[in-house]
Amino acid sequence: MKFHELTAPAIAGIDRDRTLVLLPIAAVEQHGPHLPTGTDTIICGAVAEAVEARAPESVLLAPVYWLGASAHHLRFGATLTAELSTYVATLCELARPLLEDGFRRLIFLNGHGGNVDPLKVALRELQLEFPQSILSGASYWSIAEEVIASGLEGEDRFVGHACEFETSMIQHLRPELVDEFRRAHAGPWLPDVVEGLFVSRDMKQRTRAGCTGRPDLASAEKGAALFEGIVARVGVAVKAMLAEPIPD
Amino acid sequence: MKFHELTAPAIAGIDRDRTLVLLPIAAVEQHGPHLPTGTDTIICGAVAEAVEARAPESVLLAPVYWLGASAHHLRFGATLTAELSTYVATLCELARPLLEDGFRRLIFLNGHGGNVDPLKVALRELQLEFPQSILSGASYWSIAEEVIASGLEGEDRFVGHACEFETSMIQHLRPELVDEFRRAHAGPWLPDVVEGLFVSRDMKQRTRAGCTGRPDLASAEKGAALFEGIVARVGVAVKAMLAEPIPD
Amino acid sequence: MKFHELTAPAIAGIDRDRTLVLLPIAAVEQHGPHLPTGTDTIICGAVAEAVEARAPESVLLAPVYWLGASAHHLRFGATLTAELSTYVATLCELARPLLEDGFRRLIFLNGHGGNVDPLKVALRELQLEFPQSILSGASYWSIAEEVIASGLEGEDRFVGHACEFETSMIQHLRPELVDEFRRAHAGPWLPDVVEGLFVSRDMKQRTRAGCTGRPDLASAEKGAALFEGIVARVGVAVKAMLAEPIPD
Amino acid sequence: MKFHELTAPAIAGIDRDRTLVLLPIAAVEQHGPHLPTGTDTIICGAVAEAVEARAPESVLLAPVYWLGASAHHLRFGATLTAELSTYVATLCELARPLLEDGFRRLIFLNGHGGNVDPLKVALRELQLEFPQSILSGASYWSIAEEVIASGLEGEDRFVGHACEFETSMIQHLRPELVDEFRRAHAGPWLPDVVEGLFVSRDMKQRTRAGCTGRPDLASAEKGAALFEGIVARVGVAVKAMLAEPIPD
Amino acid sequence: MKFHELTAPAIAGIDRDRTLVLLPIAAVEQHGPHLPTGTDTIICGAVAEAVEARAPESVLLAPVYWLGASAHHLRFGATLTAELSTYVATLCELARPLLEDGFRRLIFLNGHGGNVDPLKVALRELQLEFPQSILSGASYWSIAEEVIASGLEGEDRFVGHACEFETSMIQHLRPELVDEFRRAHAGPWLPDVVEGLFVSRDMKQRTRAGCTGRPDLASAEKGAALFEGIVARVGVAVKAMLAEPIPD
Amino acid sequence: MKFHELTAPAIAGIDRDRTLVLLPIAAVEQHGPHLPTGTDTIICGAVAEAVEARAPESVLLAPVYWLGASAHHLRFGATLTAELSTYVATLCELARPLLEDGFRRLIFLNGHGGNVDPLKVALRELQLEFPQSILSGASYWSIAEEVIASGLEGEDRFVGHACEFETSMIQHLRPELVDEFRRAHAGPWLPDVVEGLFVSRDMKQRTRAGCTGRPDLASAEKGAALFEGIVARVGVAVKAMLAEPIPD
Repeated sequence: MKFHELTAPAIAGIDRDRTLVLLPIAAVEQHGPHLPTGTDTIICGAVAEAVEARAPESVLLAPVYWLGASAHHLRFGATLTAELSTYVATLCELARPLLEDGFRRLIFLNGHGGNVDPLKVALRELQLEFPQSILSGASYWSIAEEVIASGLEGEDRFVGHACEFETSMIQHLRPELVDEFRRAHAGPWLPDVVEGLFVSRDMKQRTRAGCTGRPDLASAEKGAALFEGIVARVGVAVKAMLAEPIPD
Repeated sequence: MKFHELTAPAIAGIDRDRTLVLLPIAAVEQHGPHLPTGTDTIICGAVAEAVEARAPESVLLAPVYWLGASAHHLRFGATLTAELSTYVATLCELARPLLEDGFRRLIFLNGHGGNVDPLKVALRELQLEFPQSILSGASYWSIAEEVIASGLEGEDRFVGHACEFETSMIQHLRPELVDEFRRAHAGPWLPDVVEGLFVSRDMKQRTRAGCTGRPDLASAEKGAALFEGIVARVGVAVKAMLAEPIPD
Repeated sequence: MKFHELTAPAIAGIDRDRTLVLLPIAAVEQHGPHLPTGTDTIICGAVAEAVEARAPESVLLAPVYWLGASAHHLRFGATLTAELSTYVATLCELARPLLEDGFRRLIFLNGHGGNVDPLKVALRELQLEFPQSILSGASYWSIAEEVIASGLEGEDRFVGHACEFETSMIQHLRPELVDEFRRAHAGPWLPDVVEGLFVSRDMKQRTRAGCTGRPDLASAEKGAALFEGIVARVGVAVKAMLAEPIPD
Repeated sequence: MKFHELTAPAIAGIDRDRTLVLLPIAAVEQHGPHLPTGTDTIICGAVAEAVEARAPESVLLAPVYWLGASAHHLRFGATLTAELSTYVATLCELARPLLEDGFRRLIFLNGHGGNVDPLKVALRELQLEFPQSILSGASYWSIAEEVIASGLEGEDRFVGHACEFETSMIQHLRPELVDEFRRAHAGPWLPDVVEGLFVSRDMKQRTRAGCTGRPDLASAEKGAALFEGIVARVGVAVKAMLAEPIPD
Repeated sequence: MKFHELTAPAIAGIDRDRTLVLLPIAAVEQHGPHLPTGTDTIICGAVAEAVEARAPESVLLAPVYWLGASAHHLRFGATLTAELSTYVATLCELARPLLEDGFRRLIFLNGHGGNVDPLKVALRELQLEFPQSILSGASYWSIAEEVIASGLEGEDRFVGHACEFETSMIQHLRPELVDEFRRAHAGPWLPDVVEGLFVSRDMKQRTRAGCTGRPDLASAEKGAALFEGIVARVGVAVKAMLAEPIPD
Repeated sequence: MKFHELTAPAIAGIDRDRTLVLLPIAAVEQHGPHLPTGTDTIICGAVAEAVEARAPESVLLAPVYWLGASAHHLRFGATLTAELSTYVATLCELARPLLEDGFRRLIFLNGHGGNVDPLKVALRELQLEFPQSILSGASYWSIAEEVIASGLEGEDRFVGHACEFETSMIQHLRPELVDEFRRAHAGPWLPDVVEGLFVSRDMKQRTRAGCTGRPDLASAEKGAALFEGIVARVGVAVKAMLAEPIPD
């Protein structure tokens, strides 16, 4: 079920106990020399739509909230962003009317790295207001970590930025938007964890090219296989949240 | 040009002086017994896309910011909303990176009544920060007031809520989402201006049915004609903002 | 009844159901070369006082809240202003104790253009908190639009800034504060609506002189007649709000 | 000079170095059974006007900001108030345009006890922004402590609330607004300092009657003498601030 | 009883009616050429610990909240500080869980001048939320004013900054942290009250040396005697708050 | 070097390039039936002090900021907490004066799970303001993950809450504060990650007993060995941050 395609009476008729609200959140920001700024939104939106399409009776899908916390990309230009405090507030406000309207099982499905920390802060704030709810969230790559690791060839077997993974996904989902990726060279790039410490750097400090890993290794076939695997794994997570007992 | 479909280098290459940024803003909220909650987003997004499609060399289109200021619909359920202060902050944050990146001509194209006042507050705040810019905004119905008045049959020849106009538009744009509109009866409804005074009422106080006017008079043909007229008028407004001299 | 001139027991004794609270809001800001910075406060305060004086048994008048949202005048100097977010908060705080104390009919009578948008945002916020109230507001010129149009001679038959209208009013109300108005030349000035779009400009961008229209056409006689007409029209609006049914 | 009665060019012509800006701040709140809610505003406004009248060439007077921090009176009703954080913000906003416009000597003249602490917080915030200014403030009773002590008869020889002092002042300034004060009995009331500790209590906890001390001892003659003494003392403080060297 | 040294069941077992919560608040900021930045925290913490040690059955001591409102020292460096609004919020948040958990008698024991005004604002905010509580606070020097005055030799017989008093106290409490105080010369320094007006100045404007008064007159013996006297006086204040009737 | 034990001139003399600022952050909150509420502060503070003690020439230690984001423990009582937004603001404010004073290498050493997400948000905010700095942070258990895993016996070889690890640490550091831990039974407890999703639950929902794992397996000897290993690993992280190149 798609929230934005239903009438109010149709939404009123949904069984709140057996329905999970899926709120995809992403970003519109620079994605290296070869991928569109909407990359995170395209991928996260497609995953969320596919998850809903496979379980339409128990998943209520909201439209992708595409404005992310992307200030660490601003020095590249081509980036839209919410301030961190506004972003936390907005995530809470997105969930609040649904929870007040009786829905009690909710997943924020995230598709952008910079959203992870404010998302967790928002989930902590919401829990204090709505303790009798299943309030959850994760990036799709955390849910499908193994699927992703096994589907990539380059050294970095995870989701970086405009990398082998993301390039493959956009080749699969929106190939017409990919620009000469074979020539995209990420060059060396810096991690954000050193000796167990999170080191806060903006993206320009981490990669001159605005991308990481090996976009040149990307292919639409990899993208298709990864997409399939991710959708399946998120589907498992959705079922888990539907089965989770409502807390006191 | 669509911001979210371009790469960062492509955006960097845009001529800032001859380009207008078009930021559509809408809502996802209850729309009576017969229209989808995404009605405002569907209409405003379609108008904005058509405007860009007819002047792709001079219009840079952002994705529709679909989360609106809809708290006055909350008592009906089936409504997502941002708080007014968060909404004002977000509109400013949407524009800020574009203005800092050199764009100087901007239209917020609005598709939801509740957004009008906070939009104007946001434009006033942005002007203080970016005085050397053309910062503008309006609901498409204010831009195309006469077009709309002349394209409707019922007594209310303007955009109400889930009314003759909106129903016609969704019949034109997404007919599969319209539910038994011939039976939708708005019944009597209250205005929000009395003797020149704005009287603040929530939507439940204004209309028991959640809609206004004569949805039963809607038709896809009306919708098509209205759509065409609105797109043309917004195109004129876009040209005006491209011609406006940059202020000191 | 004047709130600030009554004792607490006298206020406690007022019949809440049959009383309207009148909250005048204005500004202190530059008003061209010839009018005092307090112009908006003088006019709005005088109108509000006259309205109360003609219906003292049913109107409870608060003192004029003279600090307005005037940041768009700051580049001229001679301007005091609240930030937009502070102003919205303050309008809500002004109304809140009255509504919590049982009053249910309220008009914010506005006398400054920059206040209109934040006032409407404030009325929207208050409505969510106090749904069972008549919460209204408008600039006096919106209430008395026709009276004003018919009382002026120049091309601009509406309230601009330090214009024919405002100059006439101050000549009527406080003639000793008007400085050589016959020599005030507004020169060309820019509108804030172009092709249906609100274009956000500060006052220096709209008028080099800090005033609009034809102040040289002003007269105390026009001011007296306009004042009389406006007070009468606001009186009608007050009666309408006293007659409006309290919503659920 | 009265800010609100001058034109912008007149204000532009003021010698910033030799002028002190006087910002009176007060309240509108319950004042016992016998005094009007505007008591603090009437007294503080009258003192400020008299101070300006005696040194018009060196004092620039703003209109009284009458909305105070009066939440501790709310349980009595008949009280308007700003929230503490809004009030601090507003005091800063009141001063900011004046300081940015070149004025460097400023006194907030306070007439309400609940304003003292937020005023000092605001002065601390402003000092960080405008270090090269003389930013000062006090209640008139702190400036004229001895004058007040020597002009009263009752046991409490200071400014309480709707007390001998305030009643005398309103008898002097607006006698028609005083209601049967001879019968006003404050009864016992609690201090807000105990063994050196500030104990935060609302006014209802401190006095059942909403007033303190001996209003029955008030007289217009006392009021006149006190007023004269206070105005003189504030005049001395004004001169001191005009003489204070501008800091680095 | 020390809050941070007790288990949750032990805290649950405390008699709320007969217990006072003591919340020491201080600062870490420059303290002249000879005293450690932690001076205020050392003194205030030691006083609070001694007060608890003498009445452990009726005092529940929180750890010293050492981050103060010290922005007026920033120009000297060597200073940590909270913004004033954050500080007010934090003081409220410190008290709130204790008050919600049933404690009703609370003293904020302050050890830093810059904290006084925001502390009082916080106590005023808390009172509105928790009217049936004894919410109090003061600097230890306000509680023990006479003790301090009689224990000092220099002209300034009160607590300044890194002065005779504070130097004596640190010599008594942590002598190894005092650096060549005999050579510390405060030189002339400016008061913060002039003719009854609070004049907001940062510390660099008040004293070039970063200290006031006569640190060279300090001695550990004076410190020991002052400490003893202060602890006794704060003990009296604690007893008073334990005896104070709970308000309605 | 301990910030709070140094004079301002001593701090001014520190070589900013070769010094790392270590800011320990912790919490005071319920810790099961057997551990003191100050557990996190005791452990984190002791680790930070030991790290400084072993590299005093290159580490500048701030006092432990003991107030954490602990609202998820409030339902147990015996908990102090900052709101999440206040906590993020405060962490930024803690770092800001140090960074403005020239320090460029900073580690927030965290000792409380609820602080992790707001800490990362704060580090992201600070990076935008101070891009030419090494801004890092982590919980000590993330830095010393392997050390901890290998030092425990129970099934949960990580830091839970009032668990085998924390009980051992307090037995080592403050044995007199541990209460009958052999009888503490955590019972079953819920994880906060399910199928890759973070599920936001308060502590009462995760564990009825307020503790996790096997506190009964704790020993002072384990605590001593773990402490030693953690301090060594944090020392390695400190060296890494001292060696990290300053970014552009």
